[in-house]
Amino acid sequence: MGKTEWKGGTLEGPLPPVMVTCGDMEHADIVTVAWTGIVCTQPPMTYISLRPSRYSYGIIKERGEFVINLTPANLVRAADWCGNHTGRKVDKFKACHLSKIAASHMDVPLIEESPLALECVVKEIIHLGSHDMFLSEIVGVDVDDSLITPEGRLSISRAHLAAFAHGEYFEIGRRIGKFGFSVRKKQNQNKDQKH
Amino acid sequence: MGKTEWKGGTLEGPLPPVMVTCGDMEHADIVTVAWTGIVCTQPPMTYISLRPSRYSYGIIKERGEFVINLTPANLVRAADWCGNHTGRKVDKFKACHLSKIAASHMDVPLIEESPLALECVVKEIIHLGSHDMFLSEIVGVDVDDSLITPEGRLSISRAHLAAFAHGEYFEIGRRIGKFGFSVRKKQNQNKDQKH
Repeated sequence: MGKTEWKGGTLEGPLPPVMVTCGDMEHADIVTVAWTGIVCTQPPMTYISLRPSRYSYGIIKERGEFVINLTPANLVRAADWCGNHTGRKVDKFKACHLSKIAASHMDVPLIEESPLALECVVKEIIHLGSHDMFLSEIVGVDVDDSLITPEGRLSISRAHLAAFAHGEYFEIGRRIGKFGFSVRKKQNQNKDQKH
Repeated sequence: MGKTEWKGGTLEGPLPPVMVTCGDMEHADIVTVAWTGIVCTQPPMTYISLRPSRYSYGIIKERGEFVINLTPANLVRAADWCGNHTGRKVDKFKACHLSKIAASHMDVPLIEESPLALECVVKEIIHLGSHDMFLSEIVGVDVDDSLITPEGRLSISRAHLAAFAHGEYFEIGRRIGKFGFSVRKKQNQNKDQKH
C-alpha cells in the first residue's frame, strides 16, 4: 500500500468535541468546538478557536472567561445540536434539557450533566484566518463525584468521553495502557494490560 | 452526585497522542506529544507544544518544519516508547522498527506505518511557561491508501486511531454519528446510526 498526497487540511484526530459555556447564570450560551487542546502544563493552559461570526465569540471576547465542558457519549446528540444552532435565537440549555450550575472561579454556568469542566480565563486572542484562537489559562477544574474512586483518584474511563475525528463522533473504547507502560518493568506492564 | 473542585490542571480529553517527526531523512527524531490540536480551518493550522529541554525542540526550531504522524492503536507502544526516550541517545526509527518515507513538501521523514501524516511549517513560537507552542500551517496531508474507500473518500474509522486522556491510552470505539446528525432528517439519521 502506498500514500496519497492531499493538500493541507484539518485531518488531526481524535479531538475532544467539547461544549463551551459562556455568559452568566441568567443569559448563557453553549457552543460546541473540537478546535481545542492543551498548550501548556505549567501554568495549565488551553485554547478554543472560534469563527468571529459565532454568537459566543462576542460574549467570550467581552467577558474574558468561559468553561470547557467535556462531552460524554450520552451527550453527543446535545453537543452536535449546540454546534448546529445559534444562541442568538435559542436558549440552548433549555432546548437540550441541560442544567446550569455555578462555577467556582467565575460567573459562567457549568453544564451539570458534563462529568468534567475546565474553568478558563482568556489571556490573548490570536487572529489566524477563518478562526481566532482564545489562548487561556485553566484556573479550576470541576470533577463529577462519580469519576472519583474510593482512593480519591480520578478515573477518566468512568467519564465515557466521546471523540471527534474527520467529521464523525466516536465512543472511547478499550484501554490500552498508561503513559510509560512501554518502559515499565514486566510485572507492572502485565497489570496495566489486564485492566 | 455533586462536583468536587480541583485546582487548574490539564484534564482535557480525548487528545491525539501523535508521533512528531523532525530532522532529515538521514538524521531524524520522533517525539510523542498529546499537546496538539487544530487551531484554524482556513488556512489549515495546528500546533505542538514542547518543553525546550526536548531534543526535538532544537531541531524543529532550527529547521522550521515537522510532521505530525497520527497514532493507530497498534503503534501506541512505539509512541509511548518514543515519548519516554531521548533522541540524543538513540535512533528511534531503528529502535521501534519504524520505516522512513519522504514527505512531499519538506525534507522530513514520515513514519510509513502511520495511516495519516500532516506536514507542518512553523509560523510562530509562543513562550507560555513549561512549554512553547509551535503555531504551524499544515501544508500537505499524506493519507495511507488503505484509508481510501472505492469512492475515493477518506474513512477515518479504518485508521483505528488511539486516544489519550488523563495519562492513559485508549482505542477509539463505536461510531456515534456524523457532524450534523442531530439536525438531519429522520431518514438520514437512521442511516447514520446503523454504520
